Amino acid sequence: MPEYRAHLRVRLRQGVLDPAGQAVGHALRDLGFQARDIGVGKLLELTVEAASSEAAEAEVRRMAAELLVNPVLEDYDLDLVPR
Amino acid sequence: MPEYRAHLRVRLRQGVLDPAGQAVGHALRDLGFQARDIGVGKLLELTVEAASSEAAEAEVRRMAAELLVNPVLEDYDLDLVPR
Repeated sequence: MPEYRAHLRVRLRQGVLDPAGQAVGHALRDLGFQARDIGVGKLLELTVEAASSEAAEAEVRRMAAELLVNPVLEDYDLDLVPR
Repeated sequence: MPEYRAHLRVRLRQGVLDPAGQAVGHALRDLGFQARDIGVGKLLELTVEAASSEAAEAEVRRMAAELLVNPVLEDYDLDLVPR
């Protein structure tokens, strides 16, 4: 069966407090850098087998809904690359 | 000055133990999903001002080297998008 590499980029939703992003912003400023609108999210990557890229995407979206992403706080986008 | 949105994808280097990835793998299997080679990394996004995209990239790579990425354990790639 074909294999696909899934790349999920998980971000906090707009308006959700991002303490990790704030900490990175303070540390960058302390080092003399200028940066703003800093977000810290998760990058999840995994390999699935599926009959088609549509089937692979559906499977990974089920994983996202059941485990990987908290829809109250987080948002995500997904790329799938055939291997 | 032009603004750029930087997207850094930070991954553990090959061979570095990834306990978060293992935990996700176990949890996915417990839920009946098939997935392998699971990696959990960081997604860092920030906005910088710079005279050119080359200057923006150089600035973000300095941030990576000084703070955002641990080169012993981690690897990263970078996209810059003009705003």
